[in-house]
Amino acid sequence: MKTYAKILLVAAALSLMSLPASAGKVVTDSLRSSALGKYVKCNVYLPDGFNAQGKTFPVIYLLHGLTDTYTAWMEKGNMKPVVDELITSGESLPVVIVMPDAGGPNPVDTWNGYFNVPGRNYEDFFFQELIPWAESKYKAGGSKGRRAIMGLSMGGGGSTVYCQRHPDMFSSCFAMSAWLDEDMTGQKPSKEGDRLYAVRKSVHEHSALDFIENADQATLEKLRSLAWFIDCGDDDFLLDLNVKFYQLMRDKKVPAQLRVRNGIHNWEYWHYSIRTALPYASRNFTL
Amino acid sequence: MKTYAKILLVAAALSLMSLPASAGKVVTDSLRSSALGKYVKCNVYLPDGFNAQGKTFPVIYLLHGLTDTYTAWMEKGNMKPVVDELITSGESLPVVIVMPDAGGPNPVDTWNGYFNVPGRNYEDFFFQELIPWAESKYKAGGSKGRRAIMGLSMGGGGSTVYCQRHPDMFSSCFAMSAWLDEDMTGQKPSKEGDRLYAVRKSVHEHSALDFIENADQATLEKLRSLAWFIDCGDDDFLLDLNVKFYQLMRDKKVPAQLRVRNGIHNWEYWHYSIRTALPYASRNFTL
Amino acid sequence: MKTYAKILLVAAALSLMSLPASAGKVVTDSLRSSALGKYVKCNVYLPDGFNAQGKTFPVIYLLHGLTDTYTAWMEKGNMKPVVDELITSGESLPVVIVMPDAGGPNPVDTWNGYFNVPGRNYEDFFFQELIPWAESKYKAGGSKGRRAIMGLSMGGGGSTVYCQRHPDMFSSCFAMSAWLDEDMTGQKPSKEGDRLYAVRKSVHEHSALDFIENADQATLEKLRSLAWFIDCGDDDFLLDLNVKFYQLMRDKKVPAQLRVRNGIHNWEYWHYSIRTALPYASRNFTL
Amino acid sequence: MKTYAKILLVAAALSLMSLPASAGKVVTDSLRSSALGKYVKCNVYLPDGFNAQGKTFPVIYLLHGLTDTYTAWMEKGNMKPVVDELITSGESLPVVIVMPDAGGPNPVDTWNGYFNVPGRNYEDFFFQELIPWAESKYKAGGSKGRRAIMGLSMGGGGSTVYCQRHPDMFSSCFAMSAWLDEDMTGQKPSKEGDRLYAVRKSVHEHSALDFIENADQATLEKLRSLAWFIDCGDDDFLLDLNVKFYQLMRDKKVPAQLRVRNGIHNWEYWHYSIRTALPYASRNFTL
Repeated sequence: MKTYAKILLVAAALSLMSLPASAGKVVTDSLRSSALGKYVKCNVYLPDGFNAQGKTFPVIYLLHGLTDTYTAWMEKGNMKPVVDELITSGESLPVVIVMPDAGGPNPVDTWNGYFNVPGRNYEDFFFQELIPWAESKYKAGGSKGRRAIMGLSMGGGGSTVYCQRHPDMFSSCFAMSAWLDEDMTGQKPSKEGDRLYAVRKSVHEHSALDFIENADQATLEKLRSLAWFIDCGDDDFLLDLNVKFYQLMRDKKVPAQLRVRNGIHNWEYWHYSIRTALPYASRNFTL
Repeated sequence: MKTYAKILLVAAALSLMSLPASAGKVVTDSLRSSALGKYVKCNVYLPDGFNAQGKTFPVIYLLHGLTDTYTAWMEKGNMKPVVDELITSGESLPVVIVMPDAGGPNPVDTWNGYFNVPGRNYEDFFFQELIPWAESKYKAGGSKGRRAIMGLSMGGGGSTVYCQRHPDMFSSCFAMSAWLDEDMTGQKPSKEGDRLYAVRKSVHEHSALDFIENADQATLEKLRSLAWFIDCGDDDFLLDLNVKFYQLMRDKKVPAQLRVRNGIHNWEYWHYSIRTALPYASRNFTL
Repeated sequence: MKTYAKILLVAAALSLMSLPASAGKVVTDSLRSSALGKYVKCNVYLPDGFNAQGKTFPVIYLLHGLTDTYTAWMEKGNMKPVVDELITSGESLPVVIVMPDAGGPNPVDTWNGYFNVPGRNYEDFFFQELIPWAESKYKAGGSKGRRAIMGLSMGGGGSTVYCQRHPDMFSSCFAMSAWLDEDMTGQKPSKEGDRLYAVRKSVHEHSALDFIENADQATLEKLRSLAWFIDCGDDDFLLDLNVKFYQLMRDKKVPAQLRVRNGIHNWEYWHYSIRTALPYASRNFTL
Repeated sequence: MKTYAKILLVAAALSLMSLPASAGKVVTDSLRSSALGKYVKCNVYLPDGFNAQGKTFPVIYLLHGLTDTYTAWMEKGNMKPVVDELITSGESLPVVIVMPDAGGPNPVDTWNGYFNVPGRNYEDFFFQELIPWAESKYKAGGSKGRRAIMGLSMGGGGSTVYCQRHPDMFSSCFAMSAWLDEDMTGQKPSKEGDRLYAVRKSVHEHSALDFIENADQATLEKLRSLAWFIDCGDDDFLLDLNVKFYQLMRDKKVPAQLRVRNGIHNWEYWHYSIRTALPYASRNFTL
């Protein structure tokens, strides 16, 4: 062998090989919610350089889907290496990412969803409790220009509807394979207290498509103050709803991006979506 | 809501949402090796439509890295949804993918590596036992034009050196973050029977860089019968070796592709590499 | 300066710098058409290694849009460096690409279009004269498995409808921003012999959407023998037609790919489309 | 045909089809240079919404290569539709892009280059005349955080060396296939006043590799205040110089990005590079 193999020793290299130049950390936290009457858990990504006494960062709320919990983006979506890499390369700004709990398995018996329903005021919790708590504790966000929201499926719908109803709160919305409406024709609860029925009904009643169709000019003008991105796989069972929503936005002259990539309603698709979503949110912050 | 929401019922959709149009399966199998004196496990990806009595498929050997095992590509690399998706979209041919075991954790005490070393004739096992067994049992491959090899790190080096030493066996070689050589200057075993020392020494003795530098014209001509692809992250500690190998190939007029993407020596990089590697192998089969 | 700058001399480098490893050439040719009663020009891309006495290649028909001519893909679409690069890297097979003339500027007075209309039997020309002539003269294609078709706008519609009407002739169809139907409600010719009116009417009468909606099971089964790819920009005025066509194909269980990328109805979009289209056609040849 | 074809009329569509939502314009301008003793032309991209009395934009200097002129990025590189598209989608900020003249064909007789040489003080012109003039006239830039530089080949080298020598002036540097050094061993002018010899000699004397190798700690610290991106094709004759420069930067702990994509030293490569370069510059502005 010539002199060209000045590589690190293997033993050393192995211990270092998963450390990018910018490695954040994910912590698990929880807060007491009066609106929900319980503690709510969340994972929080803290970028390299985060220090509770130090400088502030913009914030992203990253929402999970039906039957999942606050751990889904970390454990199933494997978001951390992607975020580390995008921050290292400069494609994303260093950000704090808040991943709150809004669901769980067995959705007939477990509450899922981002909207207020009788017995569970999740939207109140999100805006009145989670945002103030997270942005104070983690020195992040603080204004529309420094706050973005994104999510998948039920969380894509949640992101979209939150931005429709609170357009002064977010600078951008990135909806992945979003659950934007639901056909309740002929549907009934499977039993008393069917919580899956409740979340489906709330999605129907918060239809993102109805909202844009019925919006008046003042509302539309507010929607134009956000950057909107719709991303859905060509074989996703929610494709048609997402395309329809894009067409309604276009017809109402609210600028939005649409991308249809190869894929279905799965983590392979969403893992890749965050590669697009983080730079998009970064670009649309006004710091 | 208007009439546009003709989506599937959520309950049904949830059960279907992870099924792409073409969903293969991964089986775990094992074979008795005389060369190694033990059973060797492997995972095998079987494409949708596979049937032991049915038609044959081309075959890809997909090799893992140091301290990993035959499960790594499935469990850490999450290869299945990528392969399913690429076959569904037509970017990859339907293929059988063989992922044999060649290592394990604690490499000082556990054998790792793809080359023959005193006491462990892995290369003999691979060519004399694994290939005939796998291609017969799974009705796959059978000739150079229907066989490709790829791998990461130690498995990228293994793929490369196998193709150098057996150029009549493979139609293409895709090396990810490949361990192509090792500087043994001043190195000593940490104890008697140090198997990490042994694998490092074998990588040094099978230097892919030395091989290409010393190859005669007849050998070079054989190397030109394969398609070569070198893929390494810009922050990978093995970048320099990979670039140097590419430059030597170029200087010897053996056509090869080089790609440097953003990234380090981790699964995030390799998970994405297979998106490029499978179409590349597919394209270079001669069926 | 140290010894690392062993680069080529600038003067030499400049003369070489636009030559990829595999550089094809584009020739202009023409054939006498009885169906059209005139000579028809076409550009033909011949891959590196092409030799009229030598081996045969698969063939791709690459169709231009309204108001353009046989030179458009070469001069406006700048297809040659992309094709050279894809063949060099192995992403595309070496192919012969036939780019026939089907239009011209000032479409009210100049014939445009790919279908038979009174006074201009272009489809007859294409199948009875162009294909036999091109594949014989350029030793290419010769069967469904070695023939693909693709095009943009009017040429995307032409490709799609040709594949609907002649499914035994092509292995794949790649439609870019395709003009798949036209609303003729209340439309009238602007003058006697308005050829723009004629092409619009012919697009309406050859509606790709009507075709798939009305296809019987035997026809659908034939359509499943091709690989279909639909690619359209999110800001393209033809987006809705393309999405609708994809939805109809899906509902009829004819597998197809849909991609919506960022962009409008322009050459920037189509220049990039051929990067996807050539590997897709290559993959779907059965040689 | 059913009711789904509510597309625009073709005639109207044709006239609109090349207009993205955000369409800037490129103007040709010139300024009198005392340093060069002549007028120097430049093209300037002005984003949608530009108004000489209105708000200010960040600025990018986009440099051409040897034997080209200020028109090259517009005419050969076709930069406008890419920039329009990236601004429309929000991937790039709205920016003013200044493309000054620094060369011409027949380089033995025509001055080319970005450095001061006897008889042509281009670097003086650039920093003392061009920047103040452009940023005042076009209400752009004005500080390091609002100014980026990028270029190809000779212009990639110019960008790199300008950032080495004026690190307080730019927030990011994007070098495409950069000419970073030149081997003058045994080289002589082809005739008296050989201007190609002069530019090659000046590239050698401004070696970006020597600069980084010889930089002291204070200089290195200043280099760390910029974002650096090196992008070069695997078949480019300048690949080795670019990789070597990246390795030197890494060894000196100046963070930089390296990408090697498929390609050679041609406009196909650079046309795609600006898709990466503009978002990168945008992300690294501090507004």
